[in-house]
Amino acid sequence: MRKIITTQDLEDLAVGAAILGTGGGGDPYIGKLMAMSAIEKYGPVELVSVDELDGDVEVVAAGVMGAPSIIIEKIASGDELSFSLDAWEAFTGKRAGAIIPIEAGGLNSMCPIALAAARRLPVIDGDGMGRAFPQLEMETFNVYGVPVCPVTVADEHGNMVIVETPSAAKAEWLARGVTIRMGGQSYLCQYGMTARRAAEVSVLGTMSLGIGIGQTLREARETHRDGLAELIHYLAGTHYEVARIIGSGKVVDVNRRVANGWSVGTVLIEPFDRAEKPMSITIQNENLIAETDEGVLAIVPDLITVLDLDTAEAITTERLRYGQRVNVLAVRVPEIMRTPEALAVFGPAAFGLTHSYAPLS
Amino acid sequence: MRKIITTQDLEDLAVGAAILGTGGGGDPYIGKLMAMSAIEKYGPVELVSVDELDGDVEVVAAGVMGAPSIIIEKIASGDELSFSLDAWEAFTGKRAGAIIPIEAGGLNSMCPIALAAARRLPVIDGDGMGRAFPQLEMETFNVYGVPVCPVTVADEHGNMVIVETPSAAKAEWLARGVTIRMGGQSYLCQYGMTARRAAEVSVLGTMSLGIGIGQTLREARETHRDGLAELIHYLAGTHYEVARIIGSGKVVDVNRRVANGWSVGTVLIEPFDRAEKPMSITIQNENLIAETDEGVLAIVPDLITVLDLDTAEAITTERLRYGQRVNVLAVRVPEIMRTPEALAVFGPAAFGLTHSYAPLS
Repeated sequence: MRKIITTQDLEDLAVGAAILGTGGGGDPYIGKLMAMSAIEKYGPVELVSVDELDGDVEVVAAGVMGAPSIIIEKIASGDELSFSLDAWEAFTGKRAGAIIPIEAGGLNSMCPIALAAARRLPVIDGDGMGRAFPQLEMETFNVYGVPVCPVTVADEHGNMVIVETPSAAKAEWLARGVTIRMGGQSYLCQYGMTARRAAEVSVLGTMSLGIGIGQTLREARETHRDGLAELIHYLAGTHYEVARIIGSGKVVDVNRRVANGWSVGTVLIEPFDRAEKPMSITIQNENLIAETDEGVLAIVPDLITVLDLDTAEAITTERLRYGQRVNVLAVRVPEIMRTPEALAVFGPAAFGLTHSYAPLS
Repeated sequence: MRKIITTQDLEDLAVGAAILGTGGGGDPYIGKLMAMSAIEKYGPVELVSVDELDGDVEVVAAGVMGAPSIIIEKIASGDELSFSLDAWEAFTGKRAGAIIPIEAGGLNSMCPIALAAARRLPVIDGDGMGRAFPQLEMETFNVYGVPVCPVTVADEHGNMVIVETPSAAKAEWLARGVTIRMGGQSYLCQYGMTARRAAEVSVLGTMSLGIGIGQTLREARETHRDGLAELIHYLAGTHYEVARIIGSGKVVDVNRRVANGWSVGTVLIEPFDRAEKPMSITIQNENLIAETDEGVLAIVPDLITVLDLDTAEAITTERLRYGQRVNVLAVRVPEIMRTPEALAVFGPAAFGLTHSYAPLS
């Protein structure tokens, strides 16, 4: 599959990426503006399946690091990722031949498109998280053996830090420390690999999945059908397959702060149906676990996304407010994200949760 | 001047560097062990005047960053700086031809000798601080226009971060954040420059000064003369010139903690002579200001060093204890450190002190 990313695709992806972002990944609206502006300035971007590329092409993973609640107040010019890639190429002596998103969520589905436009490179239809996660090591690239380093960490003032360590968790730790000192937000290039390796270690098809989700909701709206039902039906035909609503209600409490470079907290949802139990969702940039006092409803790595009751569009963690009326959608992740190796890196224990993972059924 | 650094020189330098370290710079005893062990393993090291070198030789400044109270508990293997220099050379494509200490104090007078031994390079008789200071930008190299970057920041586990920014203060900010995440201690190479530039921007002669101070105290001890009087007499013949005791008494309070990657606090000295006022010294790794409620006795960049009453050896900030009987020595810094440009970078205001600088008279 090779296709030119259209303006309509970007509109749809902004909606779909917010749902895949599972509350995090940064605000896709800002990302959409970045991508549109870059395409206007530099020309169209091609979305390609990784297996369409020559196996030796160098693929670089690019994205923004930081707390979403900072990112929505500190808007990028769009050139920061290109500056980061300059440093990555100079340091490695390699030349990027394609860009892959670090995560299939929010802003980070979009800004690789802006980078690809500026560098006249294709974007790969896939990513390293199959959703959004809050930490660099939580990548299928890492799970399946691709070294994260060098990681180039740039800010909007032209400051640059290059991290070199064999450990992806240590790279996260160091890059996060730098990001905090850069004001809570930075622009990363990392996980350099051949297209051949990328085909083995990526969650495939997630960019077109994001576009498809947005398109499904848009078409339902245009034809006055039930967007949520259409969305669940659409997902059933993808490698994510299992999706369902785990609760509906009103946001009655949002406890959220920036700590250690992340947005963290909890949100409490009072069900419309008083026979149901109140649901709490725990947040670290993304929604990690949804539970009632009777048990777990959904847990990482499965997706938990808070959707506006009327539009079925995602409400990201930094936009949660008292009084919002919501559905909570859970989606099972594909097989590549449910292996023991994958769960060791981004299963519940990686977030300090004591519950074990049970795939959404 | 070219000379081979002897074991006796290292013993003397450990004593002298602690005095020049003005409380900080890291424990010179640990540094001495590092230097001795490296010389034993790799062979002798030559101390050279920078003007003896070919003007085009690449000079690299090397040293340890961190809070002294961490450094004395986390002892280096000695290879960390060599690992840092490997990264610096690989990143710049240049080859170090000589090593210059970042500061003339404590550990940081010593570990460049260990690095020089491992790399079979000479060490320059000079440095960038003429004492110890707590921050990377507080270098005469920076004051007189040498870019600090790239800065390579290594830890003892083989993790590496390279900082690239035009601002020395920003490099400090980023490297300090990385150092905190490396456990409070790291190994830096930075301020690459030609020997020609180094001759213009360094505080010259500070390694032989450190050795001379130690030698003076040793010879006084061996001949039963007054070490302190000999020391002041010796300094009068150097470019530091003015030195005197600004107080004598007992340490009655030490308030010291690690904050933001530095050892910070205050020490209170009750004078033996009850007619005198108690003296307080404010610390940020180094001693910054000595004052009574009647006024300032000495202030940065002039040196303030707490000396053991009996041996006249320096007591570094992390070894200050209740009950120690001490003299407090102040020493005026050379002219290159007292210019308006220099005071803008490491004068009292750079440490948030409201007093203005008045050279010790």
